[in-house]
Amino acid sequence: MSDDGSERSFDLIVIGGGPAGYMGALRASELGMRVALLESGKVGGVCLHQGCIPTKSLLEVSSLIQKTSASAANGLQYDPPRIDFAKIMASGQVVVNRLHQGIKHLLKSGGVVTFESSGRLAGVDKVILSGRSGEQILHADNILLATGSRPKDFPGLPFDHERVIDSSDALSFNPSGKKIGILGGGVVGVEFSQIFTSLGGNVTIFERERSILPGEDPELVSILSRELDRQGVLLRCGVSVGSISRNDQGVSLSIVPAGASTETFPEEIAVEYLLVAIGRTPNTAGLGLDSAGVILSRDKAVIVDDSGWSGVGGIYAAGDLAGGAMLAHAASHEAIVCVEKIAGLDPDPIDPINVPRVVYTHPEMVSVGLTLEQAQKKGLPAIQKKFPLMANGRSLIHGDRRGIVKVVLDETSGALLGFGGVGPGLSEILPVATLAIGLPDGARRLSHSIFPHPTVAEAIWDALRTR
Amino acid sequence: MSDDGSERSFDLIVIGGGPAGYMGALRASELGMRVALLESGKVGGVCLHQGCIPTKSLLEVSSLIQKTSASAANGLQYDPPRIDFAKIMASGQVVVNRLHQGIKHLLKSGGVVTFESSGRLAGVDKVILSGRSGEQILHADNILLATGSRPKDFPGLPFDHERVIDSSDALSFNPSGKKIGILGGGVVGVEFSQIFTSLGGNVTIFERERSILPGEDPELVSILSRELDRQGVLLRCGVSVGSISRNDQGVSLSIVPAGASTETFPEEIAVEYLLVAIGRTPNTAGLGLDSAGVILSRDKAVIVDDSGWSGVGGIYAAGDLAGGAMLAHAASHEAIVCVEKIAGLDPDPIDPINVPRVVYTHPEMVSVGLTLEQAQKKGLPAIQKKFPLMANGRSLIHGDRRGIVKVVLDETSGALLGFGGVGPGLSEILPVATLAIGLPDGARRLSHSIFPHPTVAEAIWDALRTR
Repeated sequence: MSDDGSERSFDLIVIGGGPAGYMGALRASELGMRVALLESGKVGGVCLHQGCIPTKSLLEVSSLIQKTSASAANGLQYDPPRIDFAKIMASGQVVVNRLHQGIKHLLKSGGVVTFESSGRLAGVDKVILSGRSGEQILHADNILLATGSRPKDFPGLPFDHERVIDSSDALSFNPSGKKIGILGGGVVGVEFSQIFTSLGGNVTIFERERSILPGEDPELVSILSRELDRQGVLLRCGVSVGSISRNDQGVSLSIVPAGASTETFPEEIAVEYLLVAIGRTPNTAGLGLDSAGVILSRDKAVIVDDSGWSGVGGIYAAGDLAGGAMLAHAASHEAIVCVEKIAGLDPDPIDPINVPRVVYTHPEMVSVGLTLEQAQKKGLPAIQKKFPLMANGRSLIHGDRRGIVKVVLDETSGALLGFGGVGPGLSEILPVATLAIGLPDGARRLSHSIFPHPTVAEAIWDALRTR
Repeated sequence: MSDDGSERSFDLIVIGGGPAGYMGALRASELGMRVALLESGKVGGVCLHQGCIPTKSLLEVSSLIQKTSASAANGLQYDPPRIDFAKIMASGQVVVNRLHQGIKHLLKSGGVVTFESSGRLAGVDKVILSGRSGEQILHADNILLATGSRPKDFPGLPFDHERVIDSSDALSFNPSGKKIGILGGGVVGVEFSQIFTSLGGNVTIFERERSILPGEDPELVSILSRELDRQGVLLRCGVSVGSISRNDQGVSLSIVPAGASTETFPEEIAVEYLLVAIGRTPNTAGLGLDSAGVILSRDKAVIVDDSGWSGVGGIYAAGDLAGGAMLAHAASHEAIVCVEKIAGLDPDPIDPINVPRVVYTHPEMVSVGLTLEQAQKKGLPAIQKKFPLMANGRSLIHGDRRGIVKVVLDETSGALLGFGGVGPGLSEILPVATLAIGLPDGARRLSHSIFPHPTVAEAIWDALRTR
């Protein structure tokens, strides 16, 4: 280690400053490690700058437009608002900036040494930085890789960021009066379908599977689908996109029913803009993984064990780079587990089934734990109970009478196995289900717990009490 | 027991059909009892018809007005809405009616025999009904008294329901352009202050104690007070009302600083309307309590043990009639405890400290469990940790940067002892704190739990992780 800054040693080098990277760095510094954090962009990562936070700002705007357009029946008659798209962007940016400053402050006060640079492995304990002022070398026995992911493009159709856009482009895209296709009915596609529609766009989602949000509880998906339909989003599910081409007017898609024979005559669909939201690819390129012998999965994710270890030296990976749920809150926890493991603690590994999932539309769709089907497949004596939100006072007050919550439980043991629902603000209610799922008798405890009245949360209690 | 309906026997007679009465009746019927429920008004009680539900409908309206008036900065510029007060009332009533039908349906399908009648005890096992069709007598070994409470009037100033109004009158009161005094800065007074102000009223709260919401955490109260002030509510705390008189123009109050000498020259204040919200009195009159020897406290509440037993025969009391927190959710649970005790089960008594409390203003103020001060008084090695909502993404997105959450915990045992906060939608987050407080290691478990990002709920996790 030299003091001129050209070659320095740390206990941990973290590459990537998103939810995995900065949280891992902070936890490591709490545990007494000397930590270097490398981030060539801005700390906070995609989640803060192009993901969770900016989309939720837009969804908040979309929610207000929905509420005011429906409130005449409740005695408040609004004219449509004058929409200033630049201000919408700017006010979202204010939130992002504030949180960005917060993270920078935490890193600084935690003593984390932050480098505005990318980095690549040179063996198992060395990282080469390529910043503006030339190369620099850092040493550490432990390295946490957390470079995240980027939007996947459609084969043969690279993003031009004008007509063929990704989720980052979509954040600054004014959809008013435009005909927009969204390729992929996952969380990103569905959230943007509502944002674009409420801001005056004409939106069609194209999804290969039989419904949007494949893999999620079909009953919940069906409720949300009807809601999106009611709001004016056109859902084209069970369709396969054969080819896509750009032209002067925009983008042309040729689609056939999924599973149709190759001779099926395709339907040609013209849109002005196409948001491609078919998933994300881990950012492994240029990381020097070969130099250390780090192994990738077929999806190009770093293969890790349940504490995030890559199997090579002191190299760990967390967050989107390690595949899995690709959710910010999972990423942060994965990084904490890695770092605690490095510190010689014995952290509980993350059970993917207990990572809560949210679609932040209005209404929200949430889930955590097992569905009834999953529980029964595991051989658990599970039953399911439901409660309709049209019998929940707070939901009715929020104007929601179509939602539902459902609980999956083991009545013998009193365990809560799973929770899901569609309804207003259910994301805020997920934590009580997550906590209960972690207990041996969570369902029993919840059914004896006193929920404040009136809340949407009470619906969990009502569901559990249903006979 | 005769079949002509003049004299019938049940296992349990419940007098009063509010949250305590109907929930007790339902639980008893689940447990196999033959149950009679007496309600001279509408099942659902004050909570459904004149309390929790209608006020929250009005607060929802008030919230939307607040949001749209502040949203120009976020890119949505609204003209003030045309307010149709009759429609506001009507749409709130739609919610009430739906829930009312729901309760009636549950009682019917549960086999509860409902009498549209009041009832009075005639000894420990007999109740006399005075319905339209004359008197009728019911017998039961067990009787659950749940007749609730009514607003207290100011000594010497009976409610005239025109200028001197109670919280029920306030629900159908159009505050627009009116000068309104609110006597009492408790939850009811504070919630109505925001409703009236957002609908165009000019509101002053008069509170004897040094701040509104006496007894609640002063730091939280101070945040909410500033917020109300910003919204235009005038708070006159630490003032004692000497006399109040009605006159042609409205109501005149003479106030002095609380604790001032009797010679202090009073300030005369004129308002057009006065909402008296100084608490509630249990409805014991006409219940025939003497006939059974049931004892009342100084506050006219039925004195009960921790399972709701009055100490006389099989007579129990639950809800406002038994004093205490006077909250709907506490009432329901108290009734469940009574009924399970009657059924020979061994229900856990309710610990009043674990009954969550909410002020449903915007922002909401919530608490459950112990404050730091209370925990330290109990000799617990408690510490407090706080997290400002200006560092919470979802709160910023909701437009809230003034709120805070705080946790009280025992770091040695990992127990969560208390939780409180001021912020958007915190009522929905209370259940996770309530559940955690009931565990021996709730704080530790919560700090290892995965909260969805971004949510306001995450602030609990952040608070727990704060060093």
